Amino acid sequence: MVRIAVDAMGGDYAPHAVVRGALAALREGIAEPVLVGDEHVLRPLLGEDSKIEIVHTAVSVEMHEVASSALRKKRDSSMNRAFALHKAGEVEGVVTAGNSGAAMAFAIFTLGRVQGVERPAFLTLHPNARGELSVLLDAGANVDCKPGHLLQFGIMGHVYTKYALGIESPKVGLLSNGEEETKGNELTKEAHALLKNARLNYVGYVEGTDMHNGSTDVVVSDGFVGNVALKISEGVADAITTFLKERIKKSFRNKLGYLLLADVFKELARTVDYSEYGGAPLLGCEGAAIICHGKSNEKAIKNAIGQAKEFARTKVRQHLAEAIQEYMDYVKTKES
Amino acid sequence: MVRIAVDAMGGDYAPHAVVRGALAALREGIAEPVLVGDEHVLRPLLGEDSKIEIVHTAVSVEMHEVASSALRKKRDSSMNRAFALHKAGEVEGVVTAGNSGAAMAFAIFTLGRVQGVERPAFLTLHPNARGELSVLLDAGANVDCKPGHLLQFGIMGHVYTKYALGIESPKVGLLSNGEEETKGNELTKEAHALLKNARLNYVGYVEGTDMHNGSTDVVVSDGFVGNVALKISEGVADAITTFLKERIKKSFRNKLGYLLLADVFKELARTVDYSEYGGAPLLGCEGAAIICHGKSNEKAIKNAIGQAKEFARTKVRQHLAEAIQEYMDYVKTKES
Repeated sequence: MVRIAVDAMGGDYAPHAVVRGALAALREGIAEPVLVGDEHVLRPLLGEDSKIEIVHTAVSVEMHEVASSALRKKRDSSMNRAFALHKAGEVEGVVTAGNSGAAMAFAIFTLGRVQGVERPAFLTLHPNARGELSVLLDAGANVDCKPGHLLQFGIMGHVYTKYALGIESPKVGLLSNGEEETKGNELTKEAHALLKNARLNYVGYVEGTDMHNGSTDVVVSDGFVGNVALKISEGVADAITTFLKERIKKSFRNKLGYLLLADVFKELARTVDYSEYGGAPLLGCEGAAIICHGKSNEKAIKNAIGQAKEFARTKVRQHLAEAIQEYMDYVKTKES
Repeated sequence: MVRIAVDAMGGDYAPHAVVRGALAALREGIAEPVLVGDEHVLRPLLGEDSKIEIVHTAVSVEMHEVASSALRKKRDSSMNRAFALHKAGEVEGVVTAGNSGAAMAFAIFTLGRVQGVERPAFLTLHPNARGELSVLLDAGANVDCKPGHLLQFGIMGHVYTKYALGIESPKVGLLSNGEEETKGNELTKEAHALLKNARLNYVGYVEGTDMHNGSTDVVVSDGFVGNVALKISEGVADAITTFLKERIKKSFRNKLGYLLLADVFKELARTVDYSEYGGAPLLGCEGAAIICHGKSNEKAIKNAIGQAKEFARTKVRQHLAEAIQEYMDYVKTKES
């Protein structure tokens, strides 16, 4: 079975939710998790006869630690040790629900970047109206971007959706304030020109709605805008479900209506629940790293382990290296 | 009654929806609309004995016309004539659902900017979990901003919520990718420093969720991010209602449940329906201008006429001029 290192100490509900997620992944035959963290804490959670491997370290990264400080002081942390196992070839991927800034820093530091990739990026997955998944990147790794970074996000998003999600010719769009060519800001205008010539299935500017209506497979933005977009999506979905819940409690008639619609509401909850989709693949580093939401529960961890396995199995990293190289060669040919 | 000029030819459903909205505003005693547009088209829609005033012009701005071109060629348009009536003091406000870029251009050109305001901004209103309204600005007028522009948006948002919405000490937040001071991009970091010293009830960085959970009254961002945020909110709400509608059709049991919850769903639809809130006030020009969504229906137009009246009645423009002046004086005092 594919071995995936899991940072057992990272996340708001670590180590309990992480350990349960790892056990579920093992039980369901998804992958063989290797737990990295404090053995004295983890062993009692696993039960006597568990065969799950633990790689011991007592150090862990705090959720709100500044990434640059963690990078200097926490080389021995469960998070970085997980990346080190991957670098050493002992596992085929890494899952962490810890401090995402530190996770990015350690991934780049310990695994290294894919040759030619300037800025690794977080990719998030979103259910769309076609019943498939659309992806958004960068979801928060790089708050200040140059046009060339957005171009690379487009290429990386194309590769991920094509190989890991199996979408043959993914439609790539650039998130903007309108679909017309006259829209956009300075950054998107230059990135738009680059993406048009990148030999992708580039559909031009898209709006926030295109993330959800299924018209675009890959939505590209800088990490600031992407992160704001992501949190607003979560916020609106939360606000609507809270609204419905509060109203439904108010009368017997409403409660009865709710009971009859219980399946529909459950399906809605499942659709908007990020834990269904696991975590955010970090694209552009030399490995298969899945960075989960801090609030990840057992299911999110289990699904992230599945994502890491698919990331490795479908050779996303290798395809990504080829795609970036091909693009650089293409630019060279055009220039000469 | 307060007279409000209404661009009868602007909007996807103009002139019919606009005329119906104006008639509704008159009937309900909200204001006295003055319709600006093609008399030959409008008169038959009004009925023989309607006393509603029409200011005739056969020219109108197209929905997708480039703003700068409209500004040069369409001075005689229904849109600009509405602003000219306001400038001449014949009406106390303007409502248009036409091309928003052109509307902004004409508002600034014909009415002028409030002294000291560098960039007028669109403000949008959003229902929050407190059952009140939070506002977002800039919602799309200025895609490339400097830190000083965001500061002014904060001051203008403060004034609008204080006077037009009656919130005594509105909480002002800066939209960012996280609440910690270490977050933000180059633009927000500088704007954050300015807002901290602006003598507002400034709460620091906020996230997209704060637009909806009621923790912030005024959410400040540049027009690119604001517009993306706005459209994503609409997109998620649409996706969820579409999801529910499709599932509910599927079985008798679901339909019955829906009937029992009909009031709840209606209230939800009303809450997420922008037409309830009218349009987007354009803050920082010398007048009370409400720019509506292109898809505005009768209710949106009626409510926008009410907004324009409140904008004028509560002297938002005058308070805004004072607040900007006060801030400039304060900066001068600090510097000297």
